[in-house]
Amino acid sequence: MPPHANKDRPLAALIVPDLLELLEEHPESIGPQTEEMHPADLADIAEALPEDMVRAFLSALPKERAGEVLEYLDESLRTMVLEELTAVEAASIMSEMTPDERADALEELDDETADEILAEFEPEEKAETERLLEYDPYTAGGLMTTEFVSVDENLTAEEALVAVRAMSRAGRREAMYTVYTIDGNGRLRGVLSLRELLASPDGTPLSELAWSEVVSVAPDLSQEEVSQITSNYDLVALPVVDAEKRLLGVVTVDDVIDVIQEEGTEDAQKFGGMEALEEPYMQIGLWQNVRKRGGWLAVLAVSEMLTASVMVRYEGELGRVLLLSQFIPLVMSSGGNSGSQATSLIIRAMALGEVHLDDWWRVVLRELPAGIILGLLLGAIAFGRILVWNALGLYDYGPHSFMIAVTVGLALVGIVLVGSLTGSMLPFLLKRFNFDPASASAPLVATLVDVSAISIYFSIAYLLLSGTLL
Amino acid sequence: MPPHANKDRPLAALIVPDLLELLEEHPESIGPQTEEMHPADLADIAEALPEDMVRAFLSALPKERAGEVLEYLDESLRTMVLEELTAVEAASIMSEMTPDERADALEELDDETADEILAEFEPEEKAETERLLEYDPYTAGGLMTTEFVSVDENLTAEEALVAVRAMSRAGRREAMYTVYTIDGNGRLRGVLSLRELLASPDGTPLSELAWSEVVSVAPDLSQEEVSQITSNYDLVALPVVDAEKRLLGVVTVDDVIDVIQEEGTEDAQKFGGMEALEEPYMQIGLWQNVRKRGGWLAVLAVSEMLTASVMVRYEGELGRVLLLSQFIPLVMSSGGNSGSQATSLIIRAMALGEVHLDDWWRVVLRELPAGIILGLLLGAIAFGRILVWNALGLYDYGPHSFMIAVTVGLALVGIVLVGSLTGSMLPFLLKRFNFDPASASAPLVATLVDVSAISIYFSIAYLLLSGTLL
Repeated sequence: MPPHANKDRPLAALIVPDLLELLEEHPESIGPQTEEMHPADLADIAEALPEDMVRAFLSALPKERAGEVLEYLDESLRTMVLEELTAVEAASIMSEMTPDERADALEELDDETADEILAEFEPEEKAETERLLEYDPYTAGGLMTTEFVSVDENLTAEEALVAVRAMSRAGRREAMYTVYTIDGNGRLRGVLSLRELLASPDGTPLSELAWSEVVSVAPDLSQEEVSQITSNYDLVALPVVDAEKRLLGVVTVDDVIDVIQEEGTEDAQKFGGMEALEEPYMQIGLWQNVRKRGGWLAVLAVSEMLTASVMVRYEGELGRVLLLSQFIPLVMSSGGNSGSQATSLIIRAMALGEVHLDDWWRVVLRELPAGIILGLLLGAIAFGRILVWNALGLYDYGPHSFMIAVTVGLALVGIVLVGSLTGSMLPFLLKRFNFDPASASAPLVATLVDVSAISIYFSIAYLLLSGTLL
Repeated sequence: MPPHANKDRPLAALIVPDLLELLEEHPESIGPQTEEMHPADLADIAEALPEDMVRAFLSALPKERAGEVLEYLDESLRTMVLEELTAVEAASIMSEMTPDERADALEELDDETADEILAEFEPEEKAETERLLEYDPYTAGGLMTTEFVSVDENLTAEEALVAVRAMSRAGRREAMYTVYTIDGNGRLRGVLSLRELLASPDGTPLSELAWSEVVSVAPDLSQEEVSQITSNYDLVALPVVDAEKRLLGVVTVDDVIDVIQEEGTEDAQKFGGMEALEEPYMQIGLWQNVRKRGGWLAVLAVSEMLTASVMVRYEGELGRVLLLSQFIPLVMSSGGNSGSQATSLIIRAMALGEVHLDDWWRVVLRELPAGIILGLLLGAIAFGRILVWNALGLYDYGPHSFMIAVTVGLALVGIVLVGSLTGSMLPFLLKRFNFDPASASAPLVATLVDVSAISIYFSIAYLLLSGTLL
């Protein structure tokens, strides 16, 4: 097993003390000694170093390795290191990064530093990087790399293999598991895997080998859709083409995995009732932590104050039948809980592309019976609880205990139904008006349902108990 | 753009009517006509067909294509079709699937059907499939395929390339972007990408080209950890080795993406306060929908009844100062909301491996100040709201309005702090006792915090208002 597989003693903890000593005394030996290590492990080690030693560590590595390590380095640390380096040093390391990672890293720098580094690139590299920087980072264009392998569709398999070998000798090609065939105008015509190329008899024309139905996307397609397509077709690379079908770049599967995880984190945090964080939780400062949470908490608290106004309306009833207050928390939380379940189901189904906007009525048809059954379940539990408590003398609900039990039970049927419907429809409503459906958080649904829950509860109480208790 | 990119008119809707006609009149033409299509698209089309036509459609395809389509087919439909086919037919199509998908498909069938089909496989294929079936499906062993490319470490680059070409000609090799080098005992010694192999000068010994630090895992590693490692190292394939480091199989990145999405869905549904569904939301029946939600709803409702007992204790105070009831929903929901935020942060950070069990005190150190600041924010809002309403005459809080505002404000500080701490610590507690931290759902946290919220609120009211209002 490689050292990293031992989770209890992370590689970095084992190596950092020795490394600090080497940096002090024999920096020239660091390159050879770390030669066989995966750049992701070197990045972990860099992250565990004291911040002021990271630059020295990167400088001790061969340029190519330093560039690879930068690709795996935590974003804020990467930005810090790049700002510390001179523009010439930064540019020479960044030239070794893949074009898409290089553009991403530049994007995080302040404009001035980025421009200084850009100015140090070779003209061709500079132009390529600037082209990539023009795309919105959250689209196919922003994700794609320009290091891909394309060959003329008129070649034979053997000629293509020679061309591919020449390209891979000329330099690192990130997206090289798939070979694209293009026509004389650079238009994407077909795709074949490197395996298919290697397996083919020597004389076969490429046009016979390649698949002509190529899954490709436009550069402005959102990263969510890019990840859905990559995952639906089990791709390792997704070609990006312009309106004339000219091949612009390729999105590789490792970037898609990052997108899927980012999107999952954002959705989870939004669903928890906050704005998505920009960095991992353990790295954010107190201020970001508070700011991302405080906004929604305040909005929700202000909305929840509506319930105070509703409560005021029923203060008369409450004064006469004080024991009704006992069940306020129960009816409120049951509405919120059923709403939270329905919302999480729908948001996730939307994120995976299982449910679309025009499916809303199908969802209603599912939630209506589900909500009624779940409501009856909770209603029965509460009904039983009140009668049992009364019978056992645990609490005296008075002569009208049966009607109180009916009130709470019926209220729960209505409230769970309203909760399920509100929770399932809110993501549709948000999506319809071009908001992120993931903003339909558990707390937001609960808050929306609370007002209805209290109104339903007291209305049923008023109907059933007036004349007797009220 | 390929047809699938038009989301408003899915490919399946365009093709199904024509296909039904073809199936009726010229089934033999379906193979050639769909030759260039991606099997994922063919699976979409199969899913859009009337259920009783799916079998005819698969039978009309060449066996190899039918096997590929099965790999992409929705699980329940795949199970249905395989059960309809004779064991001989099913076995001949399944032989064309990749070994890992074949084992997965068999796992979903009832034991009898699976055994009948297994009996029809070639002996070698049968043994391989049975070996794969022995692994827990949620581990590296359950995910891996046995179609990988390994070569003797003593070969030269050119010899290895010849071997790789021979292997790829001999049949489909799923995990073939990476070449593993092994010693005479089948032990994993190194790894190199197909690119590195193609780029190397002819005479180079493989041992010089291959990376000796190979990221590999044991077959019993959980699928979550498999996906974390694959994503950390940007791998397209992760080798699985036994205790002697013999190469058993390889987990490919497309399966890792499926795992990441499955885990994300499970976590989202659990966080919404329910058990994870076994199938996509739009495919589950009413009964599963109700069962997966009803259990937790009932548990939460029963727990929430604890609040009724707490409310009873404060009924005296509530009777004397009825207007305190107005703010019960606000204090309850604020505690729940802050708890839900903290929980979603920690669960997600744990799922991504950013936070570990022994980080709990670091989290406390972050949540303590954050909770206090957020509590002060909400407290200030409520305090202001009461005084403003009172001043504007929107509601008459009486002569002690200031103390009521202080009560509600102070209660919120305490409640938001308790909410943040409870919400952030519950996932640690669950993980410590080997439960899934994702079970710390928003509703569960809210329910736990509700009892404290009401107690804190009435205790502060009792302290501050006794002698005046109480």
